[in-house]
Amino acid sequence: MKKFVNDPKDFVPEMLEGLALANPDTLRYVPEYNLIMRADAPMTDKVSIVQGSGSGHEPAHVMSVGKGMLDAACPGDIFAAPPTDYVYETVKMVASPKGVLLLVNNYTGDRMAFEMAQELSEADGVTVRTLFIDDDVSVQDSTYTVGRRGVAGNFFVMKAVGAAAERGADLDEVYRIGEKVNSVTRTMGMALTACTPPAKGSPLFDLPDDEIEMGVGIHGEPGRRREKLRPAKEMVHELVNAVVEDLPFTSGDGVALMVNGLGGTPLSELYLVYGLAHKELAGRGIEVRRSYVGEYCTSLDMAGASITLVKLDDEITDLLEAPAEIPARVF
Amino acid sequence: MKKFVNDPKDFVPEMLEGLALANPDTLRYVPEYNLIMRADAPMTDKVSIVQGSGSGHEPAHVMSVGKGMLDAACPGDIFAAPPTDYVYETVKMVASPKGVLLLVNNYTGDRMAFEMAQELSEADGVTVRTLFIDDDVSVQDSTYTVGRRGVAGNFFVMKAVGAAAERGADLDEVYRIGEKVNSVTRTMGMALTACTPPAKGSPLFDLPDDEIEMGVGIHGEPGRRREKLRPAKEMVHELVNAVVEDLPFTSGDGVALMVNGLGGTPLSELYLVYGLAHKELAGRGIEVRRSYVGEYCTSLDMAGASITLVKLDDEITDLLEAPAEIPARVF
Repeated sequence: MKKFVNDPKDFVPEMLEGLALANPDTLRYVPEYNLIMRADAPMTDKVSIVQGSGSGHEPAHVMSVGKGMLDAACPGDIFAAPPTDYVYETVKMVASPKGVLLLVNNYTGDRMAFEMAQELSEADGVTVRTLFIDDDVSVQDSTYTVGRRGVAGNFFVMKAVGAAAERGADLDEVYRIGEKVNSVTRTMGMALTACTPPAKGSPLFDLPDDEIEMGVGIHGEPGRRREKLRPAKEMVHELVNAVVEDLPFTSGDGVALMVNGLGGTPLSELYLVYGLAHKELAGRGIEVRRSYVGEYCTSLDMAGASITLVKLDDEITDLLEAPAEIPARVF
Repeated sequence: MKKFVNDPKDFVPEMLEGLALANPDTLRYVPEYNLIMRADAPMTDKVSIVQGSGSGHEPAHVMSVGKGMLDAACPGDIFAAPPTDYVYETVKMVASPKGVLLLVNNYTGDRMAFEMAQELSEADGVTVRTLFIDDDVSVQDSTYTVGRRGVAGNFFVMKAVGAAAERGADLDEVYRIGEKVNSVTRTMGMALTACTPPAKGSPLFDLPDDEIEMGVGIHGEPGRRREKLRPAKEMVHELVNAVVEDLPFTSGDGVALMVNGLGGTPLSELYLVYGLAHKELAGRGIEVRRSYVGEYCTSLDMAGASITLVKLDDEITDLLEAPAEIPARVF
């Protein structure tokens, strides 16, 4: 394993400490509960938005905390759901009289932790709703999932509900928007290589030098099939095709197109993939109106990429255009 | 080689086409000269800023084109200087009556191309100055370099001169600012792995599983020495120490701290490195006032990171705080 790591058990806390040190004015790290929250939380005049998940998917979700997106994120250890009591404590720390929306990517462990935390919070008198995100078209059930998995499309749900909450929408309205965005968002990814969790110290699965995993999950779960490595345009065609046919997206649709890197793939390749996907869509009469290229939801150091499409209407476009202030490259 | 690539000779043009398709309102791709320019260039009321270099360092420099930074970037092929005539044509396309500043990272091939392009442009009556950037403290001369290499610290020069030009500073003033920022910027990087150029198809150099290259160049050039892989805090200590002692940075200084990923290292590790570096500096009485964590100048898919420090004063801080609109993650 060749990584920047000290003791692997400190990997997540050390990352979170670095994140907070880099954003001293806007973020607060609470080590007791492994959480990152807005420095100005709790806000009493807006619905609070909380997401948790295993770590290893950065910038999801701890680097999505800030004005216009999440009020807090409570990450678990690498690829592990956060403990229920940490989720519960997170809700307590950012609870607003207007209520709390919990966002959960659809994995069994995360569902359990968040559903129990919701019950505990409600017993305390906090109004909570929980929204499950399941944008991955690759497979129906998966290693850690009943139903579809939640992957990079989650970004668009966070962005839209974050903007709506910031504008003062009530909890039911924020929930409605989140559900709507999830319902028109579709993703599929593929792995060129496996990833290496710091505590394991070796690749999470074996992938021969001439093969890829088409439809891979963000924890390295199997996708649709192993395939031979092929030219980028053929692999991108397969990804775009799977995503387009699922909703389906059709001629005349306006979309947001995201090319998300899985952690080990450089921007040069992601932009090459973007160009191929953009042209595939143009050939089908689908118009790309918003573009997202970079890392949004990763799998540690996995080489690979996912493609996400969101069917846009005026309401969603307006929410995606709203400002957000989260840790990101600073210019 | 496991990459998103079609024919390797099309790698750079396909990346540039994707970049332009993702930014249709702000960028223009000119395939004849392999250049990316602001869609609203040439601007007649400001000094134009141009940088070129080999490709493979994205987001440097083609993704740094936009209001408040570069007017154009003319990349060469992977790790190869752009041809003189492409640089010359780029200067022609963005030439302003207020003059053109060429930014060049200090490598022999790039220097030759840009110096000849400057001569050709001056013969056409364009006022041109050229600024060489050499922030890498690792080695004095290197494989492709007489003197120090220019690496990720280049970002701060681009940002400062871009802001100054946007505010209407004249060419001599913009040059003065660039030279000043370069003079207080220091960087050192290290490789955990080699990188694989698409046209080569195999790693550019051999690095055993238990070794790192301390002080690596962004084209894989040798650094100070090969070392055994160690805990992150020991490697970060060595990087910080080399950078701090070079200027030197001393107790009471206020700095910008950049942790730059070399392409294959995920954000989780970069934030871990950031936290360690921040604490190292605090222990020396050096105050981090601005933080940059992410990919700014990469080496294809190399795993590794560099640390850059910039000694801040009011003038530099003000220029770094100025707005810039360049391709980046969109929120």
